[in-house]
Amino acid sequence: MKKIVLLGAGSTAFTLELVRDLVLTKALEGCRVCLVDIDEKRLKDAAAVAELYRAEIEAEIGIEAHTDRRIALEGADYVICAVKIGGYGPLEKERKIAEEHGYYRGIGDRVSCYYGGVGAYWQIRFVEEVVRDMKELCPDALLIQTSNPVFEATGYATKYLHANAVGVCHGHWGYKEIARILGLDPEKVTGEVMGFNHCVYLTDFRYEGKDAYPLIDRWIEEKSEAYWKSPQYNTLNSFHKCPDALSPGAVDAYRQYGLMPIGDAVRSTSPWWHHTDMAAKEKWYGTNGGFDSEICWNAYLAQKDEQREAIGNILRDGTPIVEKYPLRRSNEQHIRIIDAMESDCYTRLTLNIPNKGCIPGLPEDILVEIPAMVSARGIQGIRMPAFPPKLMNNVILPRMCRANNIMEAYHTGDRSLLVLELMNDHRTRSYEQAKALIDELLAQEWNRDAAEHYR
Amino acid sequence: MKKIVLLGAGSTAFTLELVRDLVLTKALEGCRVCLVDIDEKRLKDAAAVAELYRAEIEAEIGIEAHTDRRIALEGADYVICAVKIGGYGPLEKERKIAEEHGYYRGIGDRVSCYYGGVGAYWQIRFVEEVVRDMKELCPDALLIQTSNPVFEATGYATKYLHANAVGVCHGHWGYKEIARILGLDPEKVTGEVMGFNHCVYLTDFRYEGKDAYPLIDRWIEEKSEAYWKSPQYNTLNSFHKCPDALSPGAVDAYRQYGLMPIGDAVRSTSPWWHHTDMAAKEKWYGTNGGFDSEICWNAYLAQKDEQREAIGNILRDGTPIVEKYPLRRSNEQHIRIIDAMESDCYTRLTLNIPNKGCIPGLPEDILVEIPAMVSARGIQGIRMPAFPPKLMNNVILPRMCRANNIMEAYHTGDRSLLVLELMNDHRTRSYEQAKALIDELLAQEWNRDAAEHYR
Repeated sequence: MKKIVLLGAGSTAFTLELVRDLVLTKALEGCRVCLVDIDEKRLKDAAAVAELYRAEIEAEIGIEAHTDRRIALEGADYVICAVKIGGYGPLEKERKIAEEHGYYRGIGDRVSCYYGGVGAYWQIRFVEEVVRDMKELCPDALLIQTSNPVFEATGYATKYLHANAVGVCHGHWGYKEIARILGLDPEKVTGEVMGFNHCVYLTDFRYEGKDAYPLIDRWIEEKSEAYWKSPQYNTLNSFHKCPDALSPGAVDAYRQYGLMPIGDAVRSTSPWWHHTDMAAKEKWYGTNGGFDSEICWNAYLAQKDEQREAIGNILRDGTPIVEKYPLRRSNEQHIRIIDAMESDCYTRLTLNIPNKGCIPGLPEDILVEIPAMVSARGIQGIRMPAFPPKLMNNVILPRMCRANNIMEAYHTGDRSLLVLELMNDHRTRSYEQAKALIDELLAQEWNRDAAEHYR
Repeated sequence: MKKIVLLGAGSTAFTLELVRDLVLTKALEGCRVCLVDIDEKRLKDAAAVAELYRAEIEAEIGIEAHTDRRIALEGADYVICAVKIGGYGPLEKERKIAEEHGYYRGIGDRVSCYYGGVGAYWQIRFVEEVVRDMKELCPDALLIQTSNPVFEATGYATKYLHANAVGVCHGHWGYKEIARILGLDPEKVTGEVMGFNHCVYLTDFRYEGKDAYPLIDRWIEEKSEAYWKSPQYNTLNSFHKCPDALSPGAVDAYRQYGLMPIGDAVRSTSPWWHHTDMAAKEKWYGTNGGFDSEICWNAYLAQKDEQREAIGNILRDGTPIVEKYPLRRSNEQHIRIIDAMESDCYTRLTLNIPNKGCIPGLPEDILVEIPAMVSARGIQGIRMPAFPPKLMNNVILPRMCRANNIMEAYHTGDRSLLVLELMNDHRTRSYEQAKALIDELLAQEWNRDAAEHYR
């Protein structure tokens, strides 16, 4: 009887999605799912929704709820971590402080919540604590890290703590979005992406087995201009079904670097000059400036609250939950990993694991997002071709340096390294400017521990 | 009878230095030295000076002079390349154009003549032509590349052309300058530096066998402030005997990155905010802004002309040349390499060779400057410790990316990559700004071939 722990289960939508994947997985019949959250109210709701779902479809799994993660971790086989420490409030306040210092939309990453605050301190610290608990309570368990920053937090766990961990994200599926815009059947398309989390590029793209990159080239040549004028692209709700997979920004990155950026990479690792102000964001990512602009990101946060309320309502509602959330597999890979390991069914996924030579030219111990083969023998990376030099030297290696700075600053508690990393930000005009911002961020109430840590 | 070719022999001072090293080298008795330059007048003068020297000390070597390098290369064993294409005129004009576009002191490298013009085009192209000729005329010869950019030009020869080449510079001796300022006997000091050419750091520093880094720390603590106020440091001729080895800029780099920068690295790979304007340069590199400021660099160029004239006067002078240039070994390594190979006397030098695992975390094929063992079996790199992460991620890897961009732009003739590289310059404010500058530089009369090359 396998024991699966979900940390951060109070995020009901995600919990429900995992439960649906779980009950569809034969190899996991009879397993115990331990939901963990420190927010009692949200944990109770999430557990009730999960239990409702289980009962309706009469699935043979056990569902438990714990506010103490150490009880849940005892003897666990898999630990899924979806915890975002501190919510979005402090993050938005940090962004505002950074803007006062000359950093439009804040510092750290162009994807709005990636680091969850200065130096990714709280997120890395939480993973470190979980790994420490796991080594004591379930030393053979696999940590499936899914909250951001997947790159730095999981990378810290594997590189610095030598943890048995894998990072999971769904961003790599973005190539299906490209297929959709091209008018291709996404089911007939295959793709390979690689890089780092939120910094992945499409190295191979095929339609019915044949190279489909020329179809992208032709679409850019013949159809891109019309698409960028279409309501489909310029929808007000551009934050919802992100149509930026073939935005001018994505196409420009492709022209600059030689491969298509995929998923969040479209915005996260696009050139700095796409993000200097709202006008630039609109030029490259469409009306409202794309998902991370002040307009779309605020709309997203509001929608998140609504969504949470909607799921909460299910409990008072009375209509069968499976009607609203039909029994089908999600695009998430968490349960697929467990399935492949338990059933020993070779499954190709795209995961974040230590490189170990899979991407040429990158260190052995850096965490890369690559196609991997999962089975009872674990997660085996698939050897990939080298990146084009333009991409390697202007995106991949610089992004790796940033991650290394973030992880090393956490590891050493060296505040000057946080400043040094900010000196690499193209908007920094002087050392004093960067230092003043880092000091002010760390002086905030919610960062008291971080200020102690970074000396 | 070994044949040694010196390309760019019209630089009489350097030629004379090599000849002095040569006649002091027993293993090279009876060798032929072929001086090559396309400037007939300067070649004639250099050959006359060399012959004068040879005759005075009755050295048994043969000296020839050729304007056609292909005749000289035929059957050569060693080819020393000291060629700087085009002189300094175009370079200074390019710098002025760049300044009009917002790039104080020009683009590419903070050491004033390193690339010799946009994209290092002329320097890399010349090395490429030499390698092509060598493959035909002396396929077993070793190319000893000493003109700048040693990193990119030699690196291009080894990585892209698979040439038998080594890069040579004397900058690594800079740690002796530190010893001198500390008041230590430079002869009792040993040091290890590594990195890339003009981007080397002191990984190990010893006085009488004991770690001498604490002596640097103590000097910074107790004596640096007084030194920076002293005339010794603030000499008007700061360009001559560069006292910047322990300048505030060098000390700041040490604080930021954890190791002392050595030689040209003090200015070349110091943080961008040391170089924003003359005031910043004065703050970090002393009165007159250090060697690469407009004051010191112009003074250096003027002095170069005087020096040339002085050596030219020798021929008309009549006094024995050995009186002015006594018979002693220089600090240059060119002839030492040849000596070690010919005499099979194990000799430890600091050279630029493909990494092949010597510096952990860097690719196999990137050219690194490291301690190496030279003997009849060739040049064998010495395995070094890893760089501190701060230095690796904020200086070493970014510098490698720049070199890769320069080499790849030359290899592919891709102008957009020159622009992309300039986008990484902290002073660039927009894509249009960078593109306009690259286009204008390539539109200059002297860059006609380069403009054809970079499409």
